[in-house]
Amino acid sequence: MTHGNEKTDKKSASPIWGGRFSGGPSQLMQDINASISYDKTFYRQDIAGSIAHATMLASQNIISVSDKDAIISGLTQIEDEISTGTFTFSAELEDIHMNIETRLVELIGAPAKRLHTARSRNDQVATDLRLWLRDSLVNLDAMLMALQSALLDKAETYADTLMPGFTHLQTAQPITFGFHLMAYVEMFGRDRSRLADCARRMNESPLGAAALAGTGYPIDRHQTAGLLGFDRPMANAMDAVSSRDFAIEFMAAASICATHLSRLAEEIVIWSTDRFGFISLSDAFTTGSSIMPQKRNPDAAELVRAKPGRIIGDLVSLLTVIKGLPLAYGKDMQEDKEPVFDAEASLSVAIAAMTGMIEDMTAHAEPMRRALEKGHPNATDLADYLVSALNIPFRDAHHVTGQLVALADEKGCALEQLELPEMQKIEPALGTDVLDILRLENAVAARTSFGGTAPSEVRNRIADARKHYLDSQ
Amino acid sequence: MTHGNEKTDKKSASPIWGGRFSGGPSQLMQDINASISYDKTFYRQDIAGSIAHATMLASQNIISVSDKDAIISGLTQIEDEISTGTFTFSAELEDIHMNIETRLVELIGAPAKRLHTARSRNDQVATDLRLWLRDSLVNLDAMLMALQSALLDKAETYADTLMPGFTHLQTAQPITFGFHLMAYVEMFGRDRSRLADCARRMNESPLGAAALAGTGYPIDRHQTAGLLGFDRPMANAMDAVSSRDFAIEFMAAASICATHLSRLAEEIVIWSTDRFGFISLSDAFTTGSSIMPQKRNPDAAELVRAKPGRIIGDLVSLLTVIKGLPLAYGKDMQEDKEPVFDAEASLSVAIAAMTGMIEDMTAHAEPMRRALEKGHPNATDLADYLVSALNIPFRDAHHVTGQLVALADEKGCALEQLELPEMQKIEPALGTDVLDILRLENAVAARTSFGGTAPSEVRNRIADARKHYLDSQ
Amino acid sequence: MTHGNEKTDKKSASPIWGGRFSGGPSQLMQDINASISYDKTFYRQDIAGSIAHATMLASQNIISVSDKDAIISGLTQIEDEISTGTFTFSAELEDIHMNIETRLVELIGAPAKRLHTARSRNDQVATDLRLWLRDSLVNLDAMLMALQSALLDKAETYADTLMPGFTHLQTAQPITFGFHLMAYVEMFGRDRSRLADCARRMNESPLGAAALAGTGYPIDRHQTAGLLGFDRPMANAMDAVSSRDFAIEFMAAASICATHLSRLAEEIVIWSTDRFGFISLSDAFTTGSSIMPQKRNPDAAELVRAKPGRIIGDLVSLLTVIKGLPLAYGKDMQEDKEPVFDAEASLSVAIAAMTGMIEDMTAHAEPMRRALEKGHPNATDLADYLVSALNIPFRDAHHVTGQLVALADEKGCALEQLELPEMQKIEPALGTDVLDILRLENAVAARTSFGGTAPSEVRNRIADARKHYLDSQ
Amino acid sequence: MTHGNEKTDKKSASPIWGGRFSGGPSQLMQDINASISYDKTFYRQDIAGSIAHATMLASQNIISVSDKDAIISGLTQIEDEISTGTFTFSAELEDIHMNIETRLVELIGAPAKRLHTARSRNDQVATDLRLWLRDSLVNLDAMLMALQSALLDKAETYADTLMPGFTHLQTAQPITFGFHLMAYVEMFGRDRSRLADCARRMNESPLGAAALAGTGYPIDRHQTAGLLGFDRPMANAMDAVSSRDFAIEFMAAASICATHLSRLAEEIVIWSTDRFGFISLSDAFTTGSSIMPQKRNPDAAELVRAKPGRIIGDLVSLLTVIKGLPLAYGKDMQEDKEPVFDAEASLSVAIAAMTGMIEDMTAHAEPMRRALEKGHPNATDLADYLVSALNIPFRDAHHVTGQLVALADEKGCALEQLELPEMQKIEPALGTDVLDILRLENAVAARTSFGGTAPSEVRNRIADARKHYLDSQ
Repeated sequence: MTHGNEKTDKKSASPIWGGRFSGGPSQLMQDINASISYDKTFYRQDIAGSIAHATMLASQNIISVSDKDAIISGLTQIEDEISTGTFTFSAELEDIHMNIETRLVELIGAPAKRLHTARSRNDQVATDLRLWLRDSLVNLDAMLMALQSALLDKAETYADTLMPGFTHLQTAQPITFGFHLMAYVEMFGRDRSRLADCARRMNESPLGAAALAGTGYPIDRHQTAGLLGFDRPMANAMDAVSSRDFAIEFMAAASICATHLSRLAEEIVIWSTDRFGFISLSDAFTTGSSIMPQKRNPDAAELVRAKPGRIIGDLVSLLTVIKGLPLAYGKDMQEDKEPVFDAEASLSVAIAAMTGMIEDMTAHAEPMRRALEKGHPNATDLADYLVSALNIPFRDAHHVTGQLVALADEKGCALEQLELPEMQKIEPALGTDVLDILRLENAVAARTSFGGTAPSEVRNRIADARKHYLDSQ
Repeated sequence: MTHGNEKTDKKSASPIWGGRFSGGPSQLMQDINASISYDKTFYRQDIAGSIAHATMLASQNIISVSDKDAIISGLTQIEDEISTGTFTFSAELEDIHMNIETRLVELIGAPAKRLHTARSRNDQVATDLRLWLRDSLVNLDAMLMALQSALLDKAETYADTLMPGFTHLQTAQPITFGFHLMAYVEMFGRDRSRLADCARRMNESPLGAAALAGTGYPIDRHQTAGLLGFDRPMANAMDAVSSRDFAIEFMAAASICATHLSRLAEEIVIWSTDRFGFISLSDAFTTGSSIMPQKRNPDAAELVRAKPGRIIGDLVSLLTVIKGLPLAYGKDMQEDKEPVFDAEASLSVAIAAMTGMIEDMTAHAEPMRRALEKGHPNATDLADYLVSALNIPFRDAHHVTGQLVALADEKGCALEQLELPEMQKIEPALGTDVLDILRLENAVAARTSFGGTAPSEVRNRIADARKHYLDSQ
Repeated sequence: MTHGNEKTDKKSASPIWGGRFSGGPSQLMQDINASISYDKTFYRQDIAGSIAHATMLASQNIISVSDKDAIISGLTQIEDEISTGTFTFSAELEDIHMNIETRLVELIGAPAKRLHTARSRNDQVATDLRLWLRDSLVNLDAMLMALQSALLDKAETYADTLMPGFTHLQTAQPITFGFHLMAYVEMFGRDRSRLADCARRMNESPLGAAALAGTGYPIDRHQTAGLLGFDRPMANAMDAVSSRDFAIEFMAAASICATHLSRLAEEIVIWSTDRFGFISLSDAFTTGSSIMPQKRNPDAAELVRAKPGRIIGDLVSLLTVIKGLPLAYGKDMQEDKEPVFDAEASLSVAIAAMTGMIEDMTAHAEPMRRALEKGHPNATDLADYLVSALNIPFRDAHHVTGQLVALADEKGCALEQLELPEMQKIEPALGTDVLDILRLENAVAARTSFGGTAPSEVRNRIADARKHYLDSQ
Repeated sequence: MTHGNEKTDKKSASPIWGGRFSGGPSQLMQDINASISYDKTFYRQDIAGSIAHATMLASQNIISVSDKDAIISGLTQIEDEISTGTFTFSAELEDIHMNIETRLVELIGAPAKRLHTARSRNDQVATDLRLWLRDSLVNLDAMLMALQSALLDKAETYADTLMPGFTHLQTAQPITFGFHLMAYVEMFGRDRSRLADCARRMNESPLGAAALAGTGYPIDRHQTAGLLGFDRPMANAMDAVSSRDFAIEFMAAASICATHLSRLAEEIVIWSTDRFGFISLSDAFTTGSSIMPQKRNPDAAELVRAKPGRIIGDLVSLLTVIKGLPLAYGKDMQEDKEPVFDAEASLSVAIAAMTGMIEDMTAHAEPMRRALEKGHPNATDLADYLVSALNIPFRDAHHVTGQLVALADEKGCALEQLELPEMQKIEPALGTDVLDILRLENAVAARTSFGGTAPSEVRNRIADARKHYLDSQ
């Protein structure tokens, strides 16, 4: 990328900054300043903000009603032009605000020049970004709800399907696949809660803060706040134009959500190796290889696994920009929009891909069950049984369990495949009921503590979660 | 730092993992595994959790009442030993849980061994960290409230003190120092709100999730949750032991708060240069130089400015660890505590230092006022006056303003220092009232829009903020 | 952003993966997989790599010479089509490799199908990214050299211009502006050195690693490496397709360079406040305000100050993606390109803007000199003089200095404005020569230690730096 | 953590800053300023720097030879006191420099006060940190060489051991375990190269830069640089005290190295699941479970996998601190040491743990071989054979391969388990030699391209690597 530093030979300086700038900016400065390539993203929000502002100006008698009507009519037409792709954006006009305002002057003339009364681009852009993010949060919440719904459906389907519960990726205790999936329903539930808090906290209007100090015009900030669906105007004008904590908070919540998605994605990658074979994805969510025709790659899962990198990067980016920045507006803050847009798009595509994979996924009960035959995942249950049923002291119980595990290992079988008599040689008090205890299905069914893996309990939690996460929205 | 990999010559393996480990871990592994050097931080929370667990076990008839009483008495003694510094920690016992449990066995014998029934270190450590963080959040909230209180007091003191409002660190419009400080009251208000949301969302109990799948013992997770002040037990056992989003959310909120502190710190550094001379700090918050006796360095402000680095680093650290981590517990998660502790300590010291500086700070009205004499910060007011009072069209108004600014520059004076007759040569319609408009005090007083810089409006917002942020707590 | 998960109704599956995929990917998967929107950036490198590969295949008799000629002719035409904008990119063809290969088949038919012999997209994309980055590093080095050149010119212009040297942004000792600028010449020198190391280390060829394991075709990897200007082929095929440390190293070096730029940018912002008035920038590198006609905002400096946020974010992004990723290629690695491209563009524009500002900048000797009248920056010199000339013990010397500083403060003047007789009342041994010592020009001129601020020494270092950084390239 | 802001009631102010500070710092400020708890880490380097400085001062006749001798003798005693643990550190004396200097005054009186002539804590601390890091880099290089050595030994042991080469964690092509391990030898080789570049670039002496501007004393910076093993003095005094890019560069290189370690750690975790069973670690590098006696957890691998989080956090931390920081020294820079120390310790322990694991690791040929029976990893070889041996066009070859794969899938066997006659039904030209091609051992042995997986080639690369990485050191 090369940049020329030579001054432009344009006769006149920027049409925006006025006559005092005789030299005109360098071409490089124009490149740097232009944000239109990305801030056109929130043209709808910019227009909505302007309509609310004009409405207020008229109701406060700062502009006339006919001016207001002309402004609204012109803006409505511009929105239509942009959404249908007939609007011509100009990088020379720097940003979405000036592109729209300039077109408005073309369309309606003088009244357009009164729209900017008692506001500044500083409060305008802060308003636009909040409105845009608020709208996006509504969409992300719906997408996460759809993902929870998909998970709940699969959890129900597989509420009885045994699989190994891992710690350290080593078989620890038997669980069900439905139980495992429900862990993610909870995580995404908290993610939705975080995004909702973010949406609520940011729902205050910067509009009317003007450049940084408010204005002497008799504006009504409560009215514009109300028209735009904000809960209230922000209480300090300088804070209104200087703060971007709402954007950082969003990216932090998005980063956390992305780590949850990446954990599930990692599990999908592992589960769909042929060594595990726990699940499979259809052609819709796997890809092939140009050189190895037999491959079925979980690309979608890998991309979801990678997305936190990008979103955490976006988060770090804005935190770094804002750190140590004096009030009020500085050009540094122009770097706020791209990371927010990128984080939103990345999270959005990751949720969609994960939802697609969950819906698409088939679990394979047989390999899951077979995996439980290794590693004695019912050893804990045996020890617990010795303690509670036979009243054997804890330490002795563990000792006995250890001996039985050793016996099974020696015979190359699972604990539950031992015969009762050979077990009784080690602990004579053992009765037939130990065979029940050792059955993996029973071990799972026994864990009925609140939030436990027993299918009955998992079904309770599914019902609760449906009510809590799906119905109440 | 060097590490030996040679296996230890200890005869016996770890006392915790049981007899199957014949070789014993390498010395390096012991170093790696030991977390006692930092997890002793939450000994109180660990003991509180154990007392609640024992109480529940007894009321569910899983252990006897006398066992429970012995356990509670022993734990109470241990808490006393630790708080008075007479407890001997052992790195061989790895962590705070085993240090306490081992001591409990020494103190009360057999009943101690029943305490770990129906729980695991996985749910125990998750519980401890939540309890510790919840306690810390109460403290941080109080500290931020004290900072807001200090800011509100200064804002009131300086509600009429004129200073330049900057954008791009260039003089933009006149404001008051009280108004500027109020921007931070709002930021810290949102920070408190974020921390409160975090505290509320994390206030669910992992206890009883056991290793990852719940338990077959008839435990009552609602009871332990209630005893520990949690709102409810977590609804999925695997989620309970695997998730650390609450810790990340805390560090994200702390990072944002730290950027707010750093912005104010940067302003303190700039304001206290002799070029600005807007404020001064006493010896209590500045330091001298070993080589330059005349220096008075704003070290405290610089350290506060730097703290986001550390806290953002902590945040990135845990996000990176958790990204792509399969469920349930993995040793990776041992890396969760140090960043949380470091972030809490860093934020805490930064708030305390900032509160001290704000209380200590003296603002100097005269240099602030003098700074307003450059840069014509009342040009906006003049233009607005031409539009609204003289009904001069906006573009013409700006042109006239530009000519008057040029005249003042030529004479080397401020706009308000021009004589009326020379102004009338440029715009004959100007009357005496323009002199009022140009007075900076009037320019400030006029900005009475909600959240604006007018002293009357600032006082309204101070009163509101006192009610909202200080009384309601 | 919304995404549909519905499977496409395309009759056939991907033309790349072959016939085994009956279902075809979902539309979402296609969106996810397509990288053509950004990887077309390195079309030149992709074509260069293919030409080298084809040349080697022919010289190893794996393809015929006529096939090779057809391939090279076709690729040359394609490069021309892309550079002139007549090439039609297709998102369905996923990436730049398949877009080019498909067009090649259109142009030359059968021989095109032999180009992919003994290579894979895995080694191909790794080669492309290295080639692209290597080219970019040449450009960045030239840009940094231009920046050093601009700094050296200004340093020479202002080698005698006195200004306060700050620590903690408090006046510490007198320095010259030229000396200050030379600090950055050194920093950017090290930045160039880091980028050069990165370029050298990454200059190994992945080509011929094929998918991950090398190939049975009798290829000559040394030949392709040589044709592409690489120093050698990479020594392990799996490493060749799996590693992205070269890209991370680049972003790390770019992050460090960006912090250097941001430090200078922060100083430009502070120096150009009217409180400091040390420098000014012309209209070419400042902007005006839509609402405040008198403003001259250092926007370019602020954007440069902000850029580390973005580049550090890019760095964190790829580090996070690569962390914990099993070998060999995973789709996660598709996230490598965008951060690299963004970091390169961001660094490039920041260097260009800084170079423009340095060239454009005018320093104002008078406010710099006036700033030295406060804060007694010659106190160290006085104390040193008492020690070395009058042989007064160090502690006593500091005491005397303190008394003289207090006297000057009392009289409201600078140390050098005191009269000799009143100084002698405090220390009778003081002679006329103390007045010389106290002259700031002399204090500066005395610091002739290697790398010190004395103008003579600064000129020596400028000469050295010119030779070292500018001529030797 | 709570902090009091009350001023101390100490009668006297800091003993370091001198008499002008009457109030004395608040207790909080003292807490903030004290760095002795961590900067004592480099006491050896601080003493070495002082000895070099004193030696130069004497040889330049700035102090007497007897003063120099007293200073060196005193410092030698202090180093002994610290290393034997008899030295008493004081937080009131803030840092290691003042702790040592104060003790030196106690020991030798007046000459001690002349040691600080012509230097400042600013150049002193910069020198110490460089010296400390340089020493650490020597150690890290040796550790990485040991890790390479361990990998090379295992690579040789397993140079013929077949395993699946994965892409997307799906079986792609057959490789050998030795080949796979060699990928990491290359990565750690580049890591060593990066650390060596860092060591070389930072090997310049800041000593003699004094506070920021050099000094008027006739010091010889080249002499002190030489005495301390630096290549040269830094060429600009302000750069010398203000820059920390060397520390950031180290943490960046450490972060990259940590990602390499984490990738191998992730593979160890996966390979040691019972589903894969490719490797096992002994008790020395695994741990048990308090609740599940059968577990053998790869804790060491998980901790290594997690370490990048911490080191990347450290890197981000210092980058954020330095971003936008004006020259010269600011207190922000006190935040440089802890991340560097933490990154060094974290990387060091991760390398040691990985080396231990590699040495300890046993690979299991049989499960690796069995894993190759799924997924037709020799499909590429078959297609290549059809092209090169039978001259079947590429597209047709792939089609035939696909039919044979489908046949094998239908029969539930591997490609190489098909009978020749049934293969010839699909492609009559197939001869007996196809059976050789399909043998996995042959498929591996054929990939003799430079850096390919053929055992012969792997052995060549092992020999090269031994020469390049181990002997040359």
